[in-house]
Amino acid sequence: MKVLLCSMILIQSVLLQAEDGHNLWLGAKSTSPVKVICSKKSATIDIAREELLKGWMGKAEASVVLTVKPDKSIKGDGFKLSLTGVQASNDLGILYGVYELLRRQQTGVSIKEETINPSYERRMLDHWDNLNGTIERGYAGYSIFWRHGIDSLSVNDKERTLWREYARANASVGINGAVLNNVNASQLMLTTECLERVKAIAEVLRPYGIKTYLSIKFSSPMLIGGLKTADPLDPEVIKWWKKKIEEIYKLIPDFGGFLVKANSEGQPGPQDYGRTHADGANMFADAVKPFGGIVMWRAFVYTASDEDRAKQAYSEFVPLDGKFRDNVIIQVKNGPIDFQPREPFSPLFGAMKKTSVMPELQITQEYLGQSIHLVFLASMWEEFLQSDTYQEGPGSTVARCTDGSVLPQKHTAIAGVSNIGHDANWCGHPFAQANWYAFGRLAWNNKLTSEQIADEWIKLTFYQYSSGNAGHADFSKDWVENFLNPVKKMMLGSREAAVNYMMPLGLHHIFSANEHYGPGPWWAPARVRKDWTPPYYHKADTLGIGFDRTLTGSNYVSQYHAPLNSQFADLETCPEIYLLWFHHLPWDYKMKNGRTLWDDICYHYEIGLQQVREFQKTWDKTEPYVDKERFTIVQSKLRTQCINAQVWKDGCLLYFQQFSMKPIPSDLERPVNNLKDIMESDMKRR
Amino acid sequence: MKVLLCSMILIQSVLLQAEDGHNLWLGAKSTSPVKVICSKKSATIDIAREELLKGWMGKAEASVVLTVKPDKSIKGDGFKLSLTGVQASNDLGILYGVYELLRRQQTGVSIKEETINPSYERRMLDHWDNLNGTIERGYAGYSIFWRHGIDSLSVNDKERTLWREYARANASVGINGAVLNNVNASQLMLTTECLERVKAIAEVLRPYGIKTYLSIKFSSPMLIGGLKTADPLDPEVIKWWKKKIEEIYKLIPDFGGFLVKANSEGQPGPQDYGRTHADGANMFADAVKPFGGIVMWRAFVYTASDEDRAKQAYSEFVPLDGKFRDNVIIQVKNGPIDFQPREPFSPLFGAMKKTSVMPELQITQEYLGQSIHLVFLASMWEEFLQSDTYQEGPGSTVARCTDGSVLPQKHTAIAGVSNIGHDANWCGHPFAQANWYAFGRLAWNNKLTSEQIADEWIKLTFYQYSSGNAGHADFSKDWVENFLNPVKKMMLGSREAAVNYMMPLGLHHIFSANEHYGPGPWWAPARVRKDWTPPYYHKADTLGIGFDRTLTGSNYVSQYHAPLNSQFADLETCPEIYLLWFHHLPWDYKMKNGRTLWDDICYHYEIGLQQVREFQKTWDKTEPYVDKERFTIVQSKLRTQCINAQVWKDGCLLYFQQFSMKPIPSDLERPVNNLKDIMESDMKRR
Repeated sequence: MKVLLCSMILIQSVLLQAEDGHNLWLGAKSTSPVKVICSKKSATIDIAREELLKGWMGKAEASVVLTVKPDKSIKGDGFKLSLTGVQASNDLGILYGVYELLRRQQTGVSIKEETINPSYERRMLDHWDNLNGTIERGYAGYSIFWRHGIDSLSVNDKERTLWREYARANASVGINGAVLNNVNASQLMLTTECLERVKAIAEVLRPYGIKTYLSIKFSSPMLIGGLKTADPLDPEVIKWWKKKIEEIYKLIPDFGGFLVKANSEGQPGPQDYGRTHADGANMFADAVKPFGGIVMWRAFVYTASDEDRAKQAYSEFVPLDGKFRDNVIIQVKNGPIDFQPREPFSPLFGAMKKTSVMPELQITQEYLGQSIHLVFLASMWEEFLQSDTYQEGPGSTVARCTDGSVLPQKHTAIAGVSNIGHDANWCGHPFAQANWYAFGRLAWNNKLTSEQIADEWIKLTFYQYSSGNAGHADFSKDWVENFLNPVKKMMLGSREAAVNYMMPLGLHHIFSANEHYGPGPWWAPARVRKDWTPPYYHKADTLGIGFDRTLTGSNYVSQYHAPLNSQFADLETCPEIYLLWFHHLPWDYKMKNGRTLWDDICYHYEIGLQQVREFQKTWDKTEPYVDKERFTIVQSKLRTQCINAQVWKDGCLLYFQQFSMKPIPSDLERPVNNLKDIMESDMKRR
Repeated sequence: MKVLLCSMILIQSVLLQAEDGHNLWLGAKSTSPVKVICSKKSATIDIAREELLKGWMGKAEASVVLTVKPDKSIKGDGFKLSLTGVQASNDLGILYGVYELLRRQQTGVSIKEETINPSYERRMLDHWDNLNGTIERGYAGYSIFWRHGIDSLSVNDKERTLWREYARANASVGINGAVLNNVNASQLMLTTECLERVKAIAEVLRPYGIKTYLSIKFSSPMLIGGLKTADPLDPEVIKWWKKKIEEIYKLIPDFGGFLVKANSEGQPGPQDYGRTHADGANMFADAVKPFGGIVMWRAFVYTASDEDRAKQAYSEFVPLDGKFRDNVIIQVKNGPIDFQPREPFSPLFGAMKKTSVMPELQITQEYLGQSIHLVFLASMWEEFLQSDTYQEGPGSTVARCTDGSVLPQKHTAIAGVSNIGHDANWCGHPFAQANWYAFGRLAWNNKLTSEQIADEWIKLTFYQYSSGNAGHADFSKDWVENFLNPVKKMMLGSREAAVNYMMPLGLHHIFSANEHYGPGPWWAPARVRKDWTPPYYHKADTLGIGFDRTLTGSNYVSQYHAPLNSQFADLETCPEIYLLWFHHLPWDYKMKNGRTLWDDICYHYEIGLQQVREFQKTWDKTEPYVDKERFTIVQSKLRTQCINAQVWKDGCLLYFQQFSMKPIPSDLERPVNNLKDIMESDMKRR
């Protein structure tokens, strides 16, 4: 039977074409002709028509009617699906309806009359792309926007093609905005030369419904405007920005607005002039208002003060509630620290009643194995979006607090920090594409489950390559049982695995400095700010481990609404996944499963490693169902992930063991790396 | 209970003294006074007396009588133990008897009247020490004899102390000869300056009964003698050697003789002059004969000919049977290739009727993980010594064929290539000391079991450090169950583990070039002699793997006596541990356990890795019973061994999989290293 399997592999390998992943989830090809009927003509409608012709898998010779006509059930760029076609209030709604129609055909979901509206008005992809072509926390090559730096800003057709592919991928999942440059912005972004290139990009993105946004440096009026100040209340400053904004809108009439990182990690901001974040944000808001623009003002602020870093954004922004213009949205990272494998939701969600708040998710896996580890982030985002803030009583989930369901918001939005680069497969890891896909899908519908998203993505991404009968979405039992289901299970377990082998039980921020890749709970050079070092967060000592954020500690819990505040504070009710986030506990603290805390930490790291080994087994068995190219890349990356998981486990356990002074439970696999070696070498990405 | 265990560890850690391992298996201290009675006085008797006083664990105030008096039951430097003391034919026999007495006390073995004779007359330690202070295939620091090179040959007291400790350790296990320099010898060894230092070493070794030997370069008469030839039949050459040998014996009257590597791996030899190995050996034999010296002539010869390398030593030497002087012993490596993790015994054992043959074992772990891997070699040597050659019918084991039991031999000998260097603990790895110990014990008694040797060594090496009541050999149940037994089990399983993760099922010579440490089955640069490259040995191709040494192949099997020749040739009877040594088999060949050959190879590599993981668990549990220093070193080395085992497994399986084109069985752990990375990096020792 093994021989049979082997021959099967050989035969199928020939059938499975090489696939560099550039097609993303859009590789399906039409299986029959279709007639598209639409009275309206526009660039966007043309794209919708073209997509239908390229990807139709419904009845042969069927007619699809595209109707642009307002309907009170249709909100914004939502749409109404029916057996005969798509209706929408605007052209973009038609395009989204067509993508939904095709997705259903390609994933085998039936189509019935149904109105589908987006959860958020603005579904943003934030690119941390630098003007020199690099990408901060990017692991898939150079920027697709600024690849050649500011010395080579002219645009060629190859670039336009790439941007169009990018726009198509975004549109296919409902993303409708892109911030083209890093939040750690260069003032040069606002020079006319750069803006001309932004215009060119915007022109490619526009038919796909993607608005262009920019990150700005707060001190630009001084740095490129020749002013002596960047005080947001200074008339000259206000005037300078007004003029600059007029210039932008002249070039890009549908320009979306600004993303601002101010007074955060060394960036300049209004506080440099004794002004508040509201003063700063409002100055921009006033200037973009006439053009319909918005300002996304980041709440990622903290200083090296004595106050628990987790508390600082809340402390800073809640007092400003009501002071922001209605076209300002406060952009808040999902957790109060910084995109860790697991954090409780930031208490800023559900905290303000008169201020729009938008989630910022990180698609690029800065702290989650970058482009090496297979980690499907939809599970994390689902956990976050479904967290109940209790803002207006039970059911006030983060999703509902940010999409306008709990309290009215003039604008709603959600942002994801992009994982896209110039690599052929866009994201470095074939499975990292799923995170781009998942972000878009959740931005459109924040009630989707990670399970549904994984199911869709696998079908769209892999099925056409594993079936001789390319394109048909009648998924064979064999494929479902031996590919779809095991791969889905792997994806859905992958984030918890990463939590287990990196930072289980509420541990956070114990990665190695700079790279943010390997373990570094020991990293604490004297010269470095305490709140940038892992010991600040894990607080391991001979008595125990964890950050006391209860009343006896930083009292961070008080930033949550009841009953969460007491739930987190009480050991009886605090979810163990957040245990060490909220509590400093003795090593022999008894866990609910009866183990001591130390033993349970050991088990979590071990289980994480074993999970990665299981992923390897799962993936190796899929060989007959995947093209050689992607099979091999994923196989290779899983191997490295496994070695890395071992280093994480060994490094953290051996480091913490110095404090716990307890043996690793004898039934667990022993470390294979010496702590000294790990500390000296600092795990490198491969 | 875990807490209790932990406190126990803490308390005991304080009790357990730091221990650098320099004391070897000789750390026990006397528990009571003893009276030593001996009518004779000599340096050797003095040592015997001193050892008794230092190590006595018998009845307090007991008297021990040492009697030097011939007895026909006592052979050579054997001895007779009794309840009252030791009798021997010579002083050295007394010393050996005293060591045996003390060993029995320290390991808890009862003493009764018993005569104990050595298996071999000459029990040799061969040092591959170069005159520049390095050691070929040495992994424990520089040479203890030549550490400062030939520019600094003067002798100091610190060196004399070290040599004395070395001599004592050797004598305690019965080793009575030492070859002080590398078989790849420098001609400078025979210069008067160097010989003066040999004299100084010999003087320290002499009271411990250790004779000094030297390796010589065959072309020395040309290189340092100014002659035009080194032809062994040339009268000038003969004269030169005679004179040189007289010089040596003047300095060292009990000089033991020579070890010669000639016409082997580029070394000069008699064949350079159209002479035979016998011509060469006999020239030396004649010259040392008047002084009682012997010549150990190595059979490790092979050329890049078409003949299977495994066959060549036999082909070369068997025709010379009867042509050697009676003070020549042919020194044959245990296996026909080169100290691999597992080889069948060399067919030269039991092949010659009129020529003395001595085994050469390798104590230093050139191919067995060097000073990193824990591999107890006694298991391998026991397997080798107990192999039946059938020279004179069943029961003609290698042991009996070489110790004079099967056919009479004028001289008998056994040699081990030393693993000793200048490191504080002598051997690099604390457990490598066990191999030095085991070699000595087997050289003395070639019927000992590896189990007994491990038992002795553990007791002698670890017990005194793990008992508060230092020195007492009343082994507690706790210590036996939690230290002795598990550690013994680990040691006894360690060689098979190494075979499993390195070269299972008869695979051999697939290590990486030069280092001989990691895997390198792929290594085959075009410029390199085929018989120096792994593919020559594994012969993997799409059809199968293994070296056909049956009649259809090299017919190496014919060099064995019946019934071995047909046993090895027949797949029904060939032991599977030698399967690929003797046969080239298809990947789907059915093994006795029902698996295919490919699957079984995979399982062996996997099991090897799992065994190392088990060793780690075993060792970690011994923490309360071992001093901190040795515990930590062994723990750390086991970690590296585990990483290495993984690299061996991954490298070999992924390489061979390119030929087998079969999947690794799905229940096995997946590789975590990519073949490319392994091939590029070549595993490094740490």
